[in-house]
Amino acid sequence: MSGDPFPEGEYRARLARAQARMGEAGPAALLLSTEAELRYFSGFLTRFWESPTRPWLVPASGDPVAVIPEIGRVLMETTWIADIRCWPAPQPEDDGVTLLAATLEELAGAGGRVELPSQGGTYLRMPLADWARLRATARVQFTDDAGIVAALRHVKSEAEIAAIRATCAVANRAFDRGPEIARAGVPLAEVFRRFQMLLLEEGADAVPYLAGGAGPGGYPDVISPASTRPLARGDVLMLDTGAIKAGYFCDFDRNFSVGPPARGTRDAHARLFEAVEAGFATARPGVTAADMFHAMDAVCTGGRGGPGAGRLGHGLGMQLTEGPSFLPGDHTVLAPGMVLTLEPCVALGEGRIMVGEENTVLREAGAQWLSDPAPREIAVLEG
Amino acid sequence: MSGDPFPEGEYRARLARAQARMGEAGPAALLLSTEAELRYFSGFLTRFWESPTRPWLVPASGDPVAVIPEIGRVLMETTWIADIRCWPAPQPEDDGVTLLAATLEELAGAGGRVELPSQGGTYLRMPLADWARLRATARVQFTDDAGIVAALRHVKSEAEIAAIRATCAVANRAFDRGPEIARAGVPLAEVFRRFQMLLLEEGADAVPYLAGGAGPGGYPDVISPASTRPLARGDVLMLDTGAIKAGYFCDFDRNFSVGPPARGTRDAHARLFEAVEAGFATARPGVTAADMFHAMDAVCTGGRGGPGAGRLGHGLGMQLTEGPSFLPGDHTVLAPGMVLTLEPCVALGEGRIMVGEENTVLREAGAQWLSDPAPREIAVLEG
Repeated sequence: MSGDPFPEGEYRARLARAQARMGEAGPAALLLSTEAELRYFSGFLTRFWESPTRPWLVPASGDPVAVIPEIGRVLMETTWIADIRCWPAPQPEDDGVTLLAATLEELAGAGGRVELPSQGGTYLRMPLADWARLRATARVQFTDDAGIVAALRHVKSEAEIAAIRATCAVANRAFDRGPEIARAGVPLAEVFRRFQMLLLEEGADAVPYLAGGAGPGGYPDVISPASTRPLARGDVLMLDTGAIKAGYFCDFDRNFSVGPPARGTRDAHARLFEAVEAGFATARPGVTAADMFHAMDAVCTGGRGGPGAGRLGHGLGMQLTEGPSFLPGDHTVLAPGMVLTLEPCVALGEGRIMVGEENTVLREAGAQWLSDPAPREIAVLEG
Repeated sequence: MSGDPFPEGEYRARLARAQARMGEAGPAALLLSTEAELRYFSGFLTRFWESPTRPWLVPASGDPVAVIPEIGRVLMETTWIADIRCWPAPQPEDDGVTLLAATLEELAGAGGRVELPSQGGTYLRMPLADWARLRATARVQFTDDAGIVAALRHVKSEAEIAAIRATCAVANRAFDRGPEIARAGVPLAEVFRRFQMLLLEEGADAVPYLAGGAGPGGYPDVISPASTRPLARGDVLMLDTGAIKAGYFCDFDRNFSVGPPARGTRDAHARLFEAVEAGFATARPGVTAADMFHAMDAVCTGGRGGPGAGRLGHGLGMQLTEGPSFLPGDHTVLAPGMVLTLEPCVALGEGRIMVGEENTVLREAGAQWLSDPAPREIAVLEG
């Protein structure tokens, strides 16, 4: 992990936008509890979230107030947040609930409104028992934030776009070096291990996510852990990452043919290429996430949608996957500054699939690449 | 990621123990939503949890039923769970809630009891809005699981202990190679990057957590991301991981002196060694987590506890940190099979600390090492 947080102005601007929207329904405080939500407004960057023990909370009304475990004080003091209130967590009998309740009442006023992100892709990172006690003791009203935080995070600032571009550049370089580590005879688990090393060597701070698959002419899914089966001539290998640098993810993949590609493999890869092109050409401010789905699905399935086709792309940023989702039912209107994956999938029969994925940023004039897009011809490994 | 799940009997035994305890209050279903809880009963191992988009749920009454997004079907079919119910997530208008409500009613019976982990260290991985809709529509009663899942997970099976031992062995080898990558002049961020590569090379499947610090004679905290400041003669460097293999963590650290250690550095490291020894000697079935705190705190602070001293150790397993916590207020009784970290901290003045950490498993006769314990003398890097 490295990378300084953005300048204070970045966080102040985010907060001002959130508070302007919240203000439309009268004054209120915002309660944030997850890594991405909290970092979005504070710049607080740590891998310590891997520890589930402690709740971390940032209510914001005026300037944010950090209500956090004592272990986070030193790092929080390096952010722009000035009002930091700690307790010696974990403290089973009262793990910050009394302190948080008092702070919320102070910020929102007795009987005031406290808004929380509550819609798809969010959760409350706090034990349910503590949440019940907070609701019972804090004299405030808890309500949904009406998607305000999610909508803000959909549209990236230039600083965020630069950070994602830098992470994508790391993965571009690592994918180019794929043939160094993957060839017939190497177990898939070893390919995964070595590919993570390449990502780190090329400048990733960490590799929170690496998935993929390999099999004759395609693979059965894209989320399984790597098996120890060696790659074999005729396999298609897919690697999908998931690296981070300065707290921002890339999320794109590459397919490789082990040995010369069969006709079906070449054709499927070309179809992914064309679907990505169709998505790229469709992307412009004003179209919807559903439009993006249909543009790519027309190439992938002839417009039939697949059973379990899933999303054909999504937002990307502080998290590996963010909204919107390229699905028929997502009518989010695309706007400049959105960072979007294009992720077509083709079914190859017998339970095999091939998945492509690229990263883009939307500008006034249309999409720009953040990943170096895969060519029409599938890359070939020694086989 | 690699490593086969455990044999089916492992999961059946876990479930039987949970259901026996739940049964004391009459029949009920259990609702699980987080990575560790779900994997504990199913063996479902994937890094896809990095995507926050979809809720994943396993109610269990009799054999577990997986109520999961379609994208997880293929992998879930490789586990012992036979009843798998999917929906094409994300589906904003109804992201599995109707399916889950119907399944819970079927399992618990109309008006039946559904228990959820709700205490410290847990959360509900589901949007609050969906949780509200689930409570409003499912004709069941939701209650706390009374800590049953946490208590089960405290005590590891032999299969789990072997898995954690294997991960610790990876980190032991990587720490031994620390001098290959860390010396005066190397930026801390580069040390972090190279150390993750060493862990992967030595056999880690992934490195979800790496923390540490470096500074003259000590470091200010243990959760900050690495700066780009080069290591300098006189620094103490600490690295703390966080690798996983087959889904099980290690969590121990090593301190290094850059160049010959000053007297204060040598003494502090010796104090950490003695505190670990005290914790190791104290650990046996029947003592409490609080006893462990006091045994180590006597060495670290002369028994005064520190301001913000925090835990001096904790459980370890599928998560980087699990209960119990070595704190004055945690009266959990230690039992054979617990995997426990010993994590003393000494304050060095001027905001600097030094932290040691080892991993152990508790047996009938006392503690056994899982990490190769650090010697009394601090390791020295070229400086």
